[in-house]
Amino acid sequence: MNLSLPLGYRFAGVYSGIKRKPSSLDLTLIVSDFPATAAGVYTQNRVVAAPVIIDRSKTPTSAARAVVVNSGNANACTGQQGLLDAQEMCSLTAQALSQADDGGGTVIQDQVLVMSTGVIGHPLPMEKIRSGIVQAAAALSAGNTAFLRAADGILTTDKGRKIAASELRFNDRTIRIVGMAKGAGMIGPNMATMLCCVLTDARLSTEQAGRLLRAAADKSFNNISVESHTSTNDTMLLLANGAAGDQQLTEVEEIEFSAHLESMCIELAKQIPADGEGATHLIEVFVQGTETDAQARKIAIEVARSNLVKCAVLGGDPNWGRIVSAAGYAGVPLEPRQMGLRINNLELFRAGEPIPFDAVQASRSIRDNFETRIELTVGEGTGRCTHWTSDLSVDYVQFNSEYTT
Amino acid sequence: MNLSLPLGYRFAGVYSGIKRKPSSLDLTLIVSDFPATAAGVYTQNRVVAAPVIIDRSKTPTSAARAVVVNSGNANACTGQQGLLDAQEMCSLTAQALSQADDGGGTVIQDQVLVMSTGVIGHPLPMEKIRSGIVQAAAALSAGNTAFLRAADGILTTDKGRKIAASELRFNDRTIRIVGMAKGAGMIGPNMATMLCCVLTDARLSTEQAGRLLRAAADKSFNNISVESHTSTNDTMLLLANGAAGDQQLTEVEEIEFSAHLESMCIELAKQIPADGEGATHLIEVFVQGTETDAQARKIAIEVARSNLVKCAVLGGDPNWGRIVSAAGYAGVPLEPRQMGLRINNLELFRAGEPIPFDAVQASRSIRDNFETRIELTVGEGTGRCTHWTSDLSVDYVQFNSEYTT
Repeated sequence: MNLSLPLGYRFAGVYSGIKRKPSSLDLTLIVSDFPATAAGVYTQNRVVAAPVIIDRSKTPTSAARAVVVNSGNANACTGQQGLLDAQEMCSLTAQALSQADDGGGTVIQDQVLVMSTGVIGHPLPMEKIRSGIVQAAAALSAGNTAFLRAADGILTTDKGRKIAASELRFNDRTIRIVGMAKGAGMIGPNMATMLCCVLTDARLSTEQAGRLLRAAADKSFNNISVESHTSTNDTMLLLANGAAGDQQLTEVEEIEFSAHLESMCIELAKQIPADGEGATHLIEVFVQGTETDAQARKIAIEVARSNLVKCAVLGGDPNWGRIVSAAGYAGVPLEPRQMGLRINNLELFRAGEPIPFDAVQASRSIRDNFETRIELTVGEGTGRCTHWTSDLSVDYVQFNSEYTT
Repeated sequence: MNLSLPLGYRFAGVYSGIKRKPSSLDLTLIVSDFPATAAGVYTQNRVVAAPVIIDRSKTPTSAARAVVVNSGNANACTGQQGLLDAQEMCSLTAQALSQADDGGGTVIQDQVLVMSTGVIGHPLPMEKIRSGIVQAAAALSAGNTAFLRAADGILTTDKGRKIAASELRFNDRTIRIVGMAKGAGMIGPNMATMLCCVLTDARLSTEQAGRLLRAAADKSFNNISVESHTSTNDTMLLLANGAAGDQQLTEVEEIEFSAHLESMCIELAKQIPADGEGATHLIEVFVQGTETDAQARKIAIEVARSNLVKCAVLGGDPNWGRIVSAAGYAGVPLEPRQMGLRINNLELFRAGEPIPFDAVQASRSIRDNFETRIELTVGEGTGRCTHWTSDLSVDYVQFNSEYTT
């Protein structure tokens, strides 16, 4: 794999000792060689981790230079000390980058964003993080290997790294977008990813970056879940450093950029439920026929959140009453006589009446495919939403009953 | 066990052939020898089963004579045929009771209420139900054995029967209340029990019956969950036939009756999550410090609904960040610096700061007790709520991935 990375960024992923397993990376550094526009979207949880408080106060900005990320500890519910620790992560990163003789000039603490992910309620092991930041600053590189190590350094319970890339060719220049994300558990649909960082070498204003990021998050990370527990740390950042050329996007270019950003974010977001803790299926819940898209989303979220629906998909059980009944308690007006349902394109329910179907065939189609598509019609409106989630398996339960102790 | 049953009721539970296992009962008949006041509370799901539609149209009433219940099939999402079948269950019951030479006089279809529970989306096997109703009418008896068989006939995935009884002695008379419920899965907190029937020989007006029932449901069945999937069939009925004496309750008596009804309903409701599918713990979530009780309830529901919290209790894992973070996404304003948490009376979090604690001791206290008490403080208000739920186990997942196929 040879990724076409955006120009003007360097990466590092190192092992600082936060995680128990030395083979895993746990500290990531992303540096823009030029001041970059940065926008963020954050968790809607009222209990937020220290790094979220810090980043919220710093974004949007037109002068971001680095993102420092640790995995293995969320720095959430850590009180006053947690805030001091998150600030120190930024100041240490600024100091390490300023001291390096890399031509990028002095970096100040305000130009550094910070993310943390892992267990909640434990103070950060700052000694390990201090030496980790120095180690990461020394390892910075613009190459593919460094990017992949950086993408690995933000993972926790993920089985695999989550990256996506996109390239746009305009007449006078090529623009690249790349993203990395993490998340397999504590994934809820209210600004959903634990952590995601999207980088581009396009030139964007802070207003543009914020608007394009929110639109992309709305179609991607806000439409995924694993068990719908909204995390305290969810953070999605977009950095745009203009290294591909200094001109602003034209109106036509912005539309194309936005479409690329959105489909790249969807590709990245789907990797999270596909790698959901213990997941054996990626479930796509498509809801249509509501008056508004927001109503379709409410229904999709309830269907995706139902343990009974998730268990049915796990077992290849076409127990469709669980899906229809979940739609019924989403708080959205609906008329049962206008409801219909297909699973993997097999029709099971139409106009409020059950359709006789081949249960063996339906079960086999769920069992034999990693993706299960649920298509639920609830009326005649134009509202629609696609949401992705994972099934609920014995492995999820076993894993999450053994997490800290 | 010798239950003091309310006067003027007869019971039967028979096997009609709806369930596969002939050792289990699947058809229950409850008859009041006198016209009884009846009130109901029903599921908030917008997709409702046929029997819910029928009972909603008949309650409140002052002339109820019988409740017919089948288990093994929910008669939900069954279209027009489902409505006809539910109506036929009532008319067949009325006919069987009218033909019996029991001195109760003629019963008409409008005096019969109906409940169904089981799999969704399959037409009722009416031939079995027809002969089951005749069989049940012939087996009616006022004794304890008949009551227990009736309580067994409404069960589905329950491991045990769910009953509770209460007795009030006033100067001039004794009033008895008894209740039966079922439910172990698809239990969500928006009028929660699948089915519950409470009987008393007090004399109540329809207005009184409805008001007292709603108040009791609000403190009991609306505060329980297993996996928070609100069913299409939830129905709770209160029948009051006045057999204990014809006089109305005085104001003072009503207060006492209401308290007995409420605590009996709580006792009955807690049996549902305690018998939750696969449950190894009953979890009591107590939330205090919000401005209103409704806010405390919203938080309790989110904590109780979190698979991560449930899995932590399963494993005896004092991973308290999962509890605090679940409170954070309940949509209720809260101030992390005023938050505190105790698990089984061990303090883990106070005024937004983690408290060092003995993890081994905390874990042992969860493992060694069937009940886990979570006590969450979120502010200084007077709002409070207690919610009961079950943990999430491997058995729940295995059971629910094998349900219909």
